[in-house]
Amino acid sequence: MNILVTAGGTSEKIDEVRHITNHSTGGLGKMIAEAFAADQATTVTYVHGPHALTPTLKNIKLVPINSVDNLLATLTDLLTTEKFDAVIHSMAVSDYKLNSLMTQAELSQQLAKHLSEANIDFSQPKQAVAQLNDILSELTQKSEVSDKKISSQADKLMITLATAPKVIGQIKKIQPETLLVGFKLLVDVSKEHLQEVAFATLEKNNADFVLANDLTEVGPVNHIGMLVDQANQTNIFTTKLEIAQGIKQAVLHKAKGNKL
Amino acid sequence: MNILVTAGGTSEKIDEVRHITNHSTGGLGKMIAEAFAADQATTVTYVHGPHALTPTLKNIKLVPINSVDNLLATLTDLLTTEKFDAVIHSMAVSDYKLNSLMTQAELSQQLAKHLSEANIDFSQPKQAVAQLNDILSELTQKSEVSDKKISSQADKLMITLATAPKVIGQIKKIQPETLLVGFKLLVDVSKEHLQEVAFATLEKNNADFVLANDLTEVGPVNHIGMLVDQANQTNIFTTKLEIAQGIKQAVLHKAKGNKL
Repeated sequence: MNILVTAGGTSEKIDEVRHITNHSTGGLGKMIAEAFAADQATTVTYVHGPHALTPTLKNIKLVPINSVDNLLATLTDLLTTEKFDAVIHSMAVSDYKLNSLMTQAELSQQLAKHLSEANIDFSQPKQAVAQLNDILSELTQKSEVSDKKISSQADKLMITLATAPKVIGQIKKIQPETLLVGFKLLVDVSKEHLQEVAFATLEKNNADFVLANDLTEVGPVNHIGMLVDQANQTNIFTTKLEIAQGIKQAVLHKAKGNKL
Repeated sequence: MNILVTAGGTSEKIDEVRHITNHSTGGLGKMIAEAFAADQATTVTYVHGPHALTPTLKNIKLVPINSVDNLLATLTDLLTTEKFDAVIHSMAVSDYKLNSLMTQAELSQQLAKHLSEANIDFSQPKQAVAQLNDILSELTQKSEVSDKKISSQADKLMITLATAPKVIGQIKKIQPETLLVGFKLLVDVSKEHLQEVAFATLEKNNADFVLANDLTEVGPVNHIGMLVDQANQTNIFTTKLEIAQGIKQAVLHKAKGNKL
């Protein structure tokens, strides 16, 4: 089999030394890669973010990425040149990417210039808010991301983040016949809500399985994971190892079924 | 001897899963800690950021930290309860900490409300900019940092960062008799400028030594480092190991001199 696993978190560059990172150790992704690679005939491509744990088995190929854009380009390249039996997308992908960076003083200056030209009528609140929103969009449109280190002199910095492309939604669009396992991480929600979001994520991204988990139940070893599938089934696992083995079994079972 | 080494980078929390991190492997800090700990009678306290490499020698005590505020509290505690012969502050400390977080829509709404009350005269540009700056300061004053994960629904997020406390400046204020080695990282500057900034950093923070380096000359093994001291001397090292040994020798030599 040929398996693609993504693991760890993405990292958006602010400047040469600062980044916005999605914290993820890649511990679960590493175990999933190792579970599949335990079959000698299987090849695993392990796409991982900076700082992620990396497996060392010979049949696991490591591919490092950093930003969401870089991840999307790398996955697009892999999925268009290679056929994968399954894609296990466990990476914590940033929902946002860096849009602009300026000091508060610069924003005040630009804003004053635009407001003096715009002649906003503040007695019409709804319209005024829309106009202000347009001005802010224009001011933060150009990416001012620096290749150097930001000076520590500026008193206050304003960073704007814009929504990043949804990577998971692209996978089946590029390779419709692959099996897709998506991941969804929520924080401190009820089991019912987690399950609801898991099935919604499954449907939205045309995934075959979604592993939903709650950050409050994620430890280095113990890790509650809820695996839902297109047959409306829900399986609960309680450790990282159980999740890794559970995902492997689910994928192998479905792959076999598809071939009959 | 009793030595305090800081290493790695700080990490400012945006929400449960996102952080702004100062990238640093802690590779140099680890080597410095190991160089001092090679003397069995020496104890090293190794204060390190998340993801930093950590040494494993028995006479090195590991103390993890995350944010700048957490680092400052930890160092203040250590320096007020324990006497250190030297503090080697190699950690990449963020110049900024998270101040506020809101969507662009929220900012537009708040801004419209304040502007309708402020009646700014935009024909007076200088005054208008100052008034706008005051309004922005007020709007971003309350920390909106979330304990949960930010929803990925919001179109655009605005993060403001405010200057963080200068940790290095506090060290000699709390423990004036310790030897202080400061670090300064610049990006792509001339040797003359690097040396100038190194001596300015030395003076400003009452440091005994400053190791200045340029990110474009920092590799995993090779690493150009310029060590300046209060006697106006400058030493150039070319590898991480040379820097670690050079700092150790400089500290031991000065510590001996101080005791004579």
